[in-house]
Amino acid sequence: MNSQQLFDAILRKRSFLCVGLDTDIRKTPACLGGEADPQSAFNRAVIDATAPYTVCYKPNLAFYEEHGAAGFASFEKTVRYIREKHPDIFIIADAKRGDIGNTSQMYARAFFEQDLVDAVTLSPYMGSDTVMPFYGYPGKWAVILALTSNASASDFELLELAGGRKLYEQVLATSSAWGTTDNTMYVVGATQAAMLGSVRAIVPDHFLLVPGVGAQGGSLAEVARHGMNSRCGLLVNSSRGVIYADSSERFAEVAGEKARELRQEMDTLLTQYLK
Amino acid sequence: MNSQQLFDAILRKRSFLCVGLDTDIRKTPACLGGEADPQSAFNRAVIDATAPYTVCYKPNLAFYEEHGAAGFASFEKTVRYIREKHPDIFIIADAKRGDIGNTSQMYARAFFEQDLVDAVTLSPYMGSDTVMPFYGYPGKWAVILALTSNASASDFELLELAGGRKLYEQVLATSSAWGTTDNTMYVVGATQAAMLGSVRAIVPDHFLLVPGVGAQGGSLAEVARHGMNSRCGLLVNSSRGVIYADSSERFAEVAGEKARELRQEMDTLLTQYLK
Repeated sequence: MNSQQLFDAILRKRSFLCVGLDTDIRKTPACLGGEADPQSAFNRAVIDATAPYTVCYKPNLAFYEEHGAAGFASFEKTVRYIREKHPDIFIIADAKRGDIGNTSQMYARAFFEQDLVDAVTLSPYMGSDTVMPFYGYPGKWAVILALTSNASASDFELLELAGGRKLYEQVLATSSAWGTTDNTMYVVGATQAAMLGSVRAIVPDHFLLVPGVGAQGGSLAEVARHGMNSRCGLLVNSSRGVIYADSSERFAEVAGEKARELRQEMDTLLTQYLK
Repeated sequence: MNSQQLFDAILRKRSFLCVGLDTDIRKTPACLGGEADPQSAFNRAVIDATAPYTVCYKPNLAFYEEHGAAGFASFEKTVRYIREKHPDIFIIADAKRGDIGNTSQMYARAFFEQDLVDAVTLSPYMGSDTVMPFYGYPGKWAVILALTSNASASDFELLELAGGRKLYEQVLATSSAWGTTDNTMYVVGATQAAMLGSVRAIVPDHFLLVPGVGAQGGSLAEVARHGMNSRCGLLVNSSRGVIYADSSERFAEVAGEKARELRQEMDTLLTQYLK
């Protein structure tokens, strides 16, 4: 999928919502207790309920790896289910990988060779070696961490460099030369909405993956105001606020309602900013 | 295992060798073709041949994740085999993980809850949130990327900050306050041996995990000269140079010989620097 196709999907669904499948087995509703694989059963139900309102799913690998090989199988089952039932939906493996070239090549193969997902989140610390192997797969994307939504983002990402730029700004400036707006996206936390202006000054045309709306406190309207470009250019993620909105047997229905509410707000913002 | 126990193991074996189990299924010898799980069969043979000469194994997760759930199972089989046969050997999961707190907690559980490994490599980009959950497991370690051995380490790690320090130096200075010398180690590439002096100026007492000797061109003698402290303070990794030294049915035997040669050189260096 290229950036135009992603934008087309956003216009079609009137949504730039990404639902984060951070599926914590401790929080899955009691009614799934009898399932052989409650993690992927939970995901299937949430996916079916939210798919009309979302253009993207983002399973976070940590929540699957916690269960070792069995968890990895749940991850694979989940993404194959999305591919089969909702082939128009973009999938981001939130893995935050990053290694030297020959190792990054292995991660690229792991996620892209069998078309498991469309994109993988990557940490930029080790530089271009980390990212380049992911560009070997046409239509696939590298989603590079720039300014994250957590409190300790200030430890390093906000450090000022000798030239006056902050580290995250340099990450944007340097890495935007590695790929294109059709294969590179950036993670910019919604809790940093006010800094989206400085991000857009460096990467006006790239898609941004924006976590932190909801549980982490970011505001959707603020994100759109500072971050939207002429082709939307945003995927806003909500995880806990959607998938754990209810813990009864109505969990999937309520997840769908939460996604629909977010879509409604996004529809209004798309109308407001995309004249 | 704490740092004193690791040092004791080094003195006992006269070795600070870490063997990297970056097991690429394309490179496993033809003689393993009949194995149901050639990746862990290869590892078992290499482990048995090299264990007398090494104090640490470092499986790189990318090489296992490439094969999805089955690969993750090979990783688990490998580390359980080490635990069973060689319980005195330190295991580092080379995973280079890094995420916000609640997600890092999941990764910490994935690797430590069932005692799969002793340590996990972590990317510092997102700050302390990434690392703190790993400190919740006594005897376990966070191995933080500081200055890596790849060419593009210069993209960001070597950037000069407003205060005059380089980014990797600030990572060392800031993160060394998060934990202790009994639960924190740093990755410093052997290709950067000349910079080990600046590393030791900031973290004189921490263990350093040093990849890049051999295939990546780093020199063991240089690493020892610039990096060794009074309790050795080094784990030097060799992957390809040991495990792929031979591709015939003698692969394990030759891997053992290569590990023995490195041990011999390390023995000499330990004598030279630890009076």
